[in-house]
Amino acid sequence: MKIEHIGIAVKSLGLSDELFSKLLGTENYKQESVEREGVTTSFYQLGESKIELVEASREESPIAKFIDKKGEGIHHIAFGVENILEEIARLKNAGFQFISEEPKDGADNKIVVFLHPKSTNGVLIELCQEKK
Amino acid sequence: MKIEHIGIAVKSLGLSDELFSKLLGTENYKQESVEREGVTTSFYQLGESKIELVEASREESPIAKFIDKKGEGIHHIAFGVENILEEIARLKNAGFQFISEEPKDGADNKIVVFLHPKSTNGVLIELCQEKK
Repeated sequence: MKIEHIGIAVKSLGLSDELFSKLLGTENYKQESVEREGVTTSFYQLGESKIELVEASREESPIAKFIDKKGEGIHHIAFGVENILEEIARLKNAGFQFISEEPKDGADNKIVVFLHPKSTNGVLIELCQEKK
Repeated sequence: MKIEHIGIAVKSLGLSDELFSKLLGTENYKQESVEREGVTTSFYQLGESKIELVEASREESPIAKFIDKKGEGIHHIAFGVENILEEIARLKNAGFQFISEEPKDGADNKIVVFLHPKSTNGVLIELCQEKK
């Protein structure tokens, strides 16, 4: 397991890309939309991890709801795993709850699942595995 | 710059250490108190980064206030830098605001400063440099 990325909910990718490229001293390496999730994302490489800025692309997007409720800020941590099905089984067995147990296509060539924050100290945790 | 650690505010290190050791599949490598900040911390290595659980050690600790206001959850991201004074100068010059511009002793053999979240999209960002 490693920290694959940290997801940050932002209102405007345009403004936040400007801010984060100055902050991190590097440009994003891609922008990508994930229609199913209603988000547009922007990725920055930082050592072995990434920063993912996430903007809502429609009103009922979970990111729009998150920003309405809590404001802009850190939205989730994603742990990169070698075998997502094995990790889901291991964590279910250890008593963790998932928002959905079936991996789905995410951004950046990954399949992803989310653990329920009520079982993880209020932290929204994503597991992701590179698509093969 | 790399992600040195992610700080997670928790109510009880005892309960959260149990939870995160199961989640991450590894034990913490140390617990450490930072009296000046009113916190006790617990660190997990994850690739080149760490997860830092942070519990308040007194009522007026910033972590106690954070949990009162927002509940348990992700508190800050720390970027590891080679030269913290150069980074502070670079970021001030780029218009970023700091909570305090003078590096102070933090946990895990580091000197640290925090940027003000109002200048960083609502994200509390720490810069940290290994003490030499």
